[in-house]
Amino acid sequence: MSVKRVAILGASGYTGAELVRLLATHPGYEIGALSGERKAGQAMASVFPFLRHLDLPDLTRIEDLNLAGIDLAFCALPHATSQTVIRGLPRDLKIVDLSADFRLRDAAAYAKWYGKPHAAPDLQEEAVYGLTEFYRDDIRAARLVAGTGCNAATGLYALLPLVMAGVIDSDEIILDLKCGVSGAGRALKENLLHTELSEGTQPYAAGSTHRHLGEFDQELSRAAGRQVEIQFTPHLLPMNRGILATAWLRGEARRIHEVLSERYRGETFLEVLPFGTVPSTHDVRGSNFVHIGVVGDRRPGRAIVVAVLDNLTKGSSGQALQNANLMMGFYEAAGLMAPPLFP
Amino acid sequence: MSVKRVAILGASGYTGAELVRLLATHPGYEIGALSGERKAGQAMASVFPFLRHLDLPDLTRIEDLNLAGIDLAFCALPHATSQTVIRGLPRDLKIVDLSADFRLRDAAAYAKWYGKPHAAPDLQEEAVYGLTEFYRDDIRAARLVAGTGCNAATGLYALLPLVMAGVIDSDEIILDLKCGVSGAGRALKENLLHTELSEGTQPYAAGSTHRHLGEFDQELSRAAGRQVEIQFTPHLLPMNRGILATAWLRGEARRIHEVLSERYRGETFLEVLPFGTVPSTHDVRGSNFVHIGVVGDRRPGRAIVVAVLDNLTKGSSGQALQNANLMMGFYEAAGLMAPPLFP
Amino acid sequence: MSVKRVAILGASGYTGAELVRLLATHPGYEIGALSGERKAGQAMASVFPFLRHLDLPDLTRIEDLNLAGIDLAFCALPHATSQTVIRGLPRDLKIVDLSADFRLRDAAAYAKWYGKPHAAPDLQEEAVYGLTEFYRDDIRAARLVAGTGCNAATGLYALLPLVMAGVIDSDEIILDLKCGVSGAGRALKENLLHTELSEGTQPYAAGSTHRHLGEFDQELSRAAGRQVEIQFTPHLLPMNRGILATAWLRGEARRIHEVLSERYRGETFLEVLPFGTVPSTHDVRGSNFVHIGVVGDRRPGRAIVVAVLDNLTKGSSGQALQNANLMMGFYEAAGLMAPPLFP
Amino acid sequence: MSVKRVAILGASGYTGAELVRLLATHPGYEIGALSGERKAGQAMASVFPFLRHLDLPDLTRIEDLNLAGIDLAFCALPHATSQTVIRGLPRDLKIVDLSADFRLRDAAAYAKWYGKPHAAPDLQEEAVYGLTEFYRDDIRAARLVAGTGCNAATGLYALLPLVMAGVIDSDEIILDLKCGVSGAGRALKENLLHTELSEGTQPYAAGSTHRHLGEFDQELSRAAGRQVEIQFTPHLLPMNRGILATAWLRGEARRIHEVLSERYRGETFLEVLPFGTVPSTHDVRGSNFVHIGVVGDRRPGRAIVVAVLDNLTKGSSGQALQNANLMMGFYEAAGLMAPPLFP
Repeated sequence: MSVKRVAILGASGYTGAELVRLLATHPGYEIGALSGERKAGQAMASVFPFLRHLDLPDLTRIEDLNLAGIDLAFCALPHATSQTVIRGLPRDLKIVDLSADFRLRDAAAYAKWYGKPHAAPDLQEEAVYGLTEFYRDDIRAARLVAGTGCNAATGLYALLPLVMAGVIDSDEIILDLKCGVSGAGRALKENLLHTELSEGTQPYAAGSTHRHLGEFDQELSRAAGRQVEIQFTPHLLPMNRGILATAWLRGEARRIHEVLSERYRGETFLEVLPFGTVPSTHDVRGSNFVHIGVVGDRRPGRAIVVAVLDNLTKGSSGQALQNANLMMGFYEAAGLMAPPLFP
Repeated sequence: MSVKRVAILGASGYTGAELVRLLATHPGYEIGALSGERKAGQAMASVFPFLRHLDLPDLTRIEDLNLAGIDLAFCALPHATSQTVIRGLPRDLKIVDLSADFRLRDAAAYAKWYGKPHAAPDLQEEAVYGLTEFYRDDIRAARLVAGTGCNAATGLYALLPLVMAGVIDSDEIILDLKCGVSGAGRALKENLLHTELSEGTQPYAAGSTHRHLGEFDQELSRAAGRQVEIQFTPHLLPMNRGILATAWLRGEARRIHEVLSERYRGETFLEVLPFGTVPSTHDVRGSNFVHIGVVGDRRPGRAIVVAVLDNLTKGSSGQALQNANLMMGFYEAAGLMAPPLFP
Repeated sequence: MSVKRVAILGASGYTGAELVRLLATHPGYEIGALSGERKAGQAMASVFPFLRHLDLPDLTRIEDLNLAGIDLAFCALPHATSQTVIRGLPRDLKIVDLSADFRLRDAAAYAKWYGKPHAAPDLQEEAVYGLTEFYRDDIRAARLVAGTGCNAATGLYALLPLVMAGVIDSDEIILDLKCGVSGAGRALKENLLHTELSEGTQPYAAGSTHRHLGEFDQELSRAAGRQVEIQFTPHLLPMNRGILATAWLRGEARRIHEVLSERYRGETFLEVLPFGTVPSTHDVRGSNFVHIGVVGDRRPGRAIVVAVLDNLTKGSSGQALQNANLMMGFYEAAGLMAPPLFP
Repeated sequence: MSVKRVAILGASGYTGAELVRLLATHPGYEIGALSGERKAGQAMASVFPFLRHLDLPDLTRIEDLNLAGIDLAFCALPHATSQTVIRGLPRDLKIVDLSADFRLRDAAAYAKWYGKPHAAPDLQEEAVYGLTEFYRDDIRAARLVAGTGCNAATGLYALLPLVMAGVIDSDEIILDLKCGVSGAGRALKENLLHTELSEGTQPYAAGSTHRHLGEFDQELSRAAGRQVEIQFTPHLLPMNRGILATAWLRGEARRIHEVLSERYRGETFLEVLPFGTVPSTHDVRGSNFVHIGVVGDRRPGRAIVVAVLDNLTKGSSGQALQNANLMMGFYEAAGLMAPPLFP
C-alpha cells in the first residue's frame, strides 16, 4: 500500500496527541502537518514530551498549514471552531472530524443542543456519523466523517442493537455514566485540577441535559423508527481514561445477551463477556476495545448492560483512525491492535 | 457530664480505627479496651501509626478483654463473628454493633441474604436499626444498636422520606451507587490492590444481589406499608472514602425537593442543596455530613436524587458515635462537628 | 477565655479554607470577616461547598472588609500582594501572614529570592519567623508573625536541631523533597490538572533554585552561626496533601536520633519514631503532627532523616493557628488535636 | 524472518502479563506456552481480562509445560524459584530470566544480598547481565540473560557512563528513588492495598539496604575498576508504573550532560533531554523509553541527574523483549516502538 499523508488540526490537545500516538506505529500514514493555535511555533516534543522520540513537524497556526499533498485531515479542534475551519478546507481533502460539529444531521437538533445555528449546514448533511460498526459502508465512501461523542459511543454500543432488535422497552432506558477526566480536555478549569478531582466523584450535566443526548436521540430514534428519548446523567471520576456506561433496561437479560453477542460476533474491537460478567475500564485503557457485560436483575424482566471503552481511543482518536483506515482503503484495524495497558 | 468508658472490639480494621479517630477529641469518652485478633499484643501505634500520638491500650484478643467498668462497647467485628461475640457479652453493657449481624429484624430475611440461620435471634429482635435520624427515640432507649450498611445509609437518606410521603413511585426505584474502596475493609484481596483498583472502575454485586438490599427491603417496605423492592448496583471507584448514590426516580422533582428539605430541616448532619444542585463526595470526606441534591429530568415526572456521605464516618463509625451519644445521654453531635477534609 | 474575632484575607484559596476548617471547631475564635478578590460577593458555601454547614460571612473585596472589632487577621494572600495589604492594616491588629513576604528578615535576601525590593522593609524587620517550636516566645509577644514555607518547615524540623547541636556536617546536607500538589494552590495551571499530574512524578525547581532556600539559608545559618547552604530539589507527587523530606546527612545516625528525640521531647506535635523506622505522609494527613524517622546508612557516618507533615495544616494553616493561639493567650494546641485522616 | 515460539513461565504476574502485551503486536513471536502456579488451569482472559481479545494458551503448572518446539523461554518467576526451575530446563532452550536470581555474577555477593547460597552457581556464572545498551554483544551470543532490577536499571542508566568516564566522584553518589507500586508485583500485602497506598508516600528499604544494591555495586565497581558503594533509598509513590531516580552527584553538570549525550547518541530508547530540563515518569509510561535530564546545582561542582523509565516495560518486560530480539536475531527494537500512554 502507498503511504498516505495526514494533517492533524488541533494537535496540542489530548485527542490530537492520541492520534499522533496511534499513528506513530501505523505503517500506512505519514504525519505531514500539525496545527495548534495556542502552542503555534512550538515543537511537539515541548508540548507533549512523551512524543519526543518521534520526528514530527512543528505546530503551526491553521492559516499557516501547508496542506499540499495531504490526503486526509484529522480535525481535533474545539466545537464551533471546527465547522468554520472545515468549511474552508479543499474539497478534495478527506476529513475525519473529532469535534461535535457534524454529529447531528438535523439543523434544528444542532441549534437546540448547541445553542446557535450551524455555520455549514450543507456539510452537516454530508457528514457520516462515525460509529464505525454501524456505518461502515457509508464511512468507506465518505469525504467527511464526524467522530461520535465519547459518552455517546459508549452508550450506543450497549443500546443500539437492543433498540434495533426490539428486545428492550425503548421508552424506559436509563443511562448512568462514569467518566474519566481526559474527556474534558486540557482546558484550564478549576474543577479539573488534581486537588479538586482526585479522591472523589460527582455528577455533571445531571438530569439529561448533556449535549451528547442529541446523538442518542438521533441514533436511537433512527434505530427504533420512532422518537426515543433516554434519561442520561454522567459522573466525573478520579481517573484519566475510561468510560463505564451502566444501562438500566427492561427486557429479558438472556435475550439481551444473545442479541449483543450475535450483533458483535466478528467485530474486532467489540467483546461481549460471558453472561453475568461485568467489565472494567481497567481492561480497555489505552486501547480500541469495547467490553460489554449483561446481568439480569432480581426483578424479572429487568437487566443491566455495562459497556466500557477508553474515551481517548475507541471513544475518539482510535475511532477516528479506524474510520480513516476505511476511507483510505487500509485494513480497518491497522495500527489499533495494541492491547490495553494494565496495570 | 461524667466520662464514659468504652471498648472497641475489632479495632485493627478501618471502622475501628475511625472510631478511635473520632473518640480522640470527644470530651465524654475514655477508651478503656481495644481488641484485634490478628494484631493482638501489638500497640495501636504500630497497627495504625497515624494514631501514635494517642495514649491507647494495646490490642488484645477478645477473650482477654477486661470489660470491667466499660459502659459501652463498639463492635467492629467481621460479619457472623459479631453475633457470637455479642451473645456472650454482659447484659448490662450497651452495645453499638457495626457489623451486618443485627441490621435485619427478620430471621428469614437474615437467612436469605447471609446464607445461614442467625446465631442469636433474640438479640436480632432486640436490636434497633441505627439510622439515627429515623430511629432516634428507639436508639436513645436501646441496649443494642445495629449500625446500618454504608450503602444502605446513603440510599435510605435519599429515599426514605420520599417513600413515606408517597411522592415517588416506590415500584420504580433504581439506585446506582459509586463507592470508595475503604468500604471493603483492610482485607487482603487482589481486587483491592492499588495496581488493580486505581485509574479505573467496575460494578460489583451487579443486578441487585448486594446484601445491603436486605436493609433496603426492610426499611423501604416499612415506610411504604407494603413490599418495596428496589434495583441496586454499586460500582467500585478509585478513591478511599465516599459513597455517591444516584437514585433514578419517578415523581415531581420540585415536590421531591420540598419533601426532603422539610424532612431534614433541623437535622445537624443532613444538608439538602438548593434545587438543581448536585453534591460531591469531596465535600463530605472525613465528616459526618450528608449532602443531598435533587435535579429534574428532561422527561416530565422523572427526577434524580443524589446523596453523598463518607462511608467510614456517617456511613459507619460516625453514625456509631452519634448513636452512642444518644445512648449515653450526651449531646447527639458531640465529637462529630469537624468539617470535611478538602482538598 | 473571651472569644476573639478574626478575619481571613484571601479565604478563597486552599490555605484560607483550611483555616476555616480548623477554626470551625475551635472554641476561642469567631470568624468576623472573609475576603477573596476573585470570588468577592459569593458565599463561602458556593466557593467551598464542604463548608456549607457553617454560618460564615460572605467573601468581600479587601477594601470592603470591616475590621472593626477584629483582634487578629490571617493573611492568606498571594506573595507580593501581602506586603502591600499588610502595610495598610491598622497597627493595633495582630497579624499572622501565610505568604512568603515576611519570612526573610534580610532585605537583600528577599530581593535575591523574590526578584524585587520589599515594599515594607520595616515590617519585614518586625516580623517573627513562625516556626513555632523554635520561636515560641517571640511569637507570643509578636504583632506580626510570618508563616514559614511548607517545604521549609518540613526540612527545618529535620535539620535545625542537628545543625544547632553540631552533630552533622552542615556543609553536606542534601534535601530531597516529595510534595503533594495542594502546596501549589488553586491556580489554573496546566501542570496542575488531574490529567497531567496523576499517575506520575517529576522534579521542579531542580538544582537548588526553589525560593524556600532563602528560608533554609536564613535559619540554618543562624543555627550554625555561619553561612550554611544546603542542596534542595522538590518533586511533585500525585497526592493532594503531604510533604516527605528525605535528608541525606553525614553524622552518626544513633546520635542524630538522640538529638532529635531530646529536642522534641514534650512537643505536642512532633513525634520522633523509634530508631530505624521511617514515617509516611499517610499518617499525618489533615493534622498538625510531624513524624520524623532516622535510619543509618550502610556507609558508616552517614544517615537519612525523614520528616513528614501535611503542607496545608502543620506546613501552613495549622501552624498559623498554633501561632495565633500563642498570640491570643490560648492553649497552644487548641483546635489542633484532631488526629490525621486515615485512610 | 521465521516466527519464533516462546514460553512464559510465571505469566500470572504483572511482568508476565506485560510480556504478553508486548508480544501481542510483535510479528516475530508466537506464544506457545504459559505457566502460572496459583492460577493453573485458568484461561489468561480470566486472570487478565485486558488480554481477552487474544488467542492464548491456558495457564498450566510448570511441570505440565510442553516445551517442544519452544525457542526461548521468558522466566517471570519469583526470586529463588527461578534458579531451581531454570536449572531443570533443556540446555538448548534460550532463556531470558526476569527474576533476581542471575543478576549477580559473584556467589558471595548473591549469598550476601539474598541470604542463602545460590542453587545453580554454574548458571549464575554463565548468565549475561541484561542491561542491553551496555551488554549488547554478550546478550546477542548468550543462552541465558538475566533481566536487571528495575531500580537498578533506572539508576545505572544515569550513572554508568559517568563512572566510566570518571566525570563524577564515585565515592559520593546518592540515589533517591521514587517508585510506582507495580514493581512490588501482584502480591497480597497490606501495604499494597489502595487504601494504604494512595494519597501518600513513604520510604522503604531505607539506608541502603535494598537488594538492588548488589547490582549497583557489581556494575559500578566494574565500570570504575575499583569498589564503588553508593547510597540508595527508594520511596513508594501512589502510582502504578514508573520509576524516577534522582542522582545527587559531584561533578560539572555541563560535562555530565555531554558525557551522557555522547554515550546515548544513537540509542533508540535513551533520550537525554536538553541541559537544565527534567524528565517526568508521565512521559514514558507503558513504553520502553528512558528520559534523562541533567541540572546543575547552586553549589559549583554539584549536579543532579534525573532518569525515568517504566518499571514494567524498560525496567523489566520491555528490556526482556529487547534482549530476546537480540538473541533471536531480530531487529532490536521490534515490538517496542509504541509511544508512551499519556495522559
